[in-house]
Amino acid sequence: MRAIFNQELKQLGSDLESMANQVATAIERAAESLREGDIVIAEQVIDADERINDLQRDIDDLCVMLLARQQPVAGDLRNVLSALRMAQTLERQGDLARHVAAIARGRYPEPPLPEPILGLILQMADLAVRAGKDVARLISTRDLELAAVIQSNDAELDALHRRSFQMILDPAHDLSRQQVIDAVLMGRFLERFGDHSTSVASRVAYLVSGASMPETHDAEDADALH
Amino acid sequence: MRAIFNQELKQLGSDLESMANQVATAIERAAESLREGDIVIAEQVIDADERINDLQRDIDDLCVMLLARQQPVAGDLRNVLSALRMAQTLERQGDLARHVAAIARGRYPEPPLPEPILGLILQMADLAVRAGKDVARLISTRDLELAAVIQSNDAELDALHRRSFQMILDPAHDLSRQQVIDAVLMGRFLERFGDHSTSVASRVAYLVSGASMPETHDAEDADALH
Repeated sequence: MRAIFNQELKQLGSDLESMANQVATAIERAAESLREGDIVIAEQVIDADERINDLQRDIDDLCVMLLARQQPVAGDLRNVLSALRMAQTLERQGDLARHVAAIARGRYPEPPLPEPILGLILQMADLAVRAGKDVARLISTRDLELAAVIQSNDAELDALHRRSFQMILDPAHDLSRQQVIDAVLMGRFLERFGDHSTSVASRVAYLVSGASMPETHDAEDADALH
Repeated sequence: MRAIFNQELKQLGSDLESMANQVATAIERAAESLREGDIVIAEQVIDADERINDLQRDIDDLCVMLLARQQPVAGDLRNVLSALRMAQTLERQGDLARHVAAIARGRYPEPPLPEPILGLILQMADLAVRAGKDVARLISTRDLELAAVIQSNDAELDALHRRSFQMILDPAHDLSRQQVIDAVLMGRFLERFGDHSTSVASRVAYLVSGASMPETHDAEDADALH
């Protein structure tokens, strides 16, 4: 029984890893579609999101099955519940990557934004990509130093998000209303992507160390908005 | 054992109800702060969000305790897992109500938006308030007709969200960049609030009827954005 359980837990871990890798690829390709104005890549990101959603359903089913059949307690229960939540968060990150790609697609063949706001949004996208990759590595290695890196990376992303509002408000920068809408939404999507990465990181940190309480509610630097 | 379990499940249900009621109040007061330009109400919504977060933590703890001690299967397991997720969704809705209030506060003493976009955002807010109240009633009554009402209400909210972009883009309406930012963010927050209501509604419907699969991933009318 325990052997089967361990095998199923391993399956769960590898499904999560695979999901995190797909999310990292999604945000990386979304950033690329934005940078290159590449509609083919944008379409691929949008289509690929279905597979991320499927993976979440698989993980969900596996978790429910594990809970029902194995009735885990203590650390094992914590493990399964965390997987359930991480999958939910990763699924949401996939959506956000898809949204970014959808804006890139929606503006084609125009570049989605003029400089310098495009440069700033691309900087945010690069940080989101780094967050996505770090989360995937953290899930597979459980190296807690990565959790700290993800956290400080997110602080940087939040700072850029605040700067994006200043830049949008600066009358020196010519922006159409459509461009203001796109910049606000992309900034928001990327900032949320970063928040979710932090939330996965603190779940893993909690699982590994058991030391600090996880952020059970969805962490967000709300003040960045206002 | 079963008697205690039933009592704990009852506690769980009443905690969820209380959380849903607080979320409904939060969005109602946030809409009011927007309509009246009332900074005191806005502050209250922002402060009250902490209590919603606390309730989520309580529900979380109760669910984990139930899973560990009672090791429920079948319908009971489904019940506990759904509660876990509904609490997470309601917590997020509390955040969104807080964000709306924060924008109202941030613009004070100016009205946050000029007409006609203010009117449209307030219409969206009214639909979000209705959604919040319907969800609270659905959780307490389990009346599945409400689930259908919540769904069609959300379709209306999505339609208004699409209209908000058209209105923002219409050069006939004078809008500063700050107002464009605020309108985009408020529209987004209210639309997401509606999505989350629909997601809670389908979870309850699934629990009661067992008939249709719940939306395990976070439902969203993404096309409204682009």
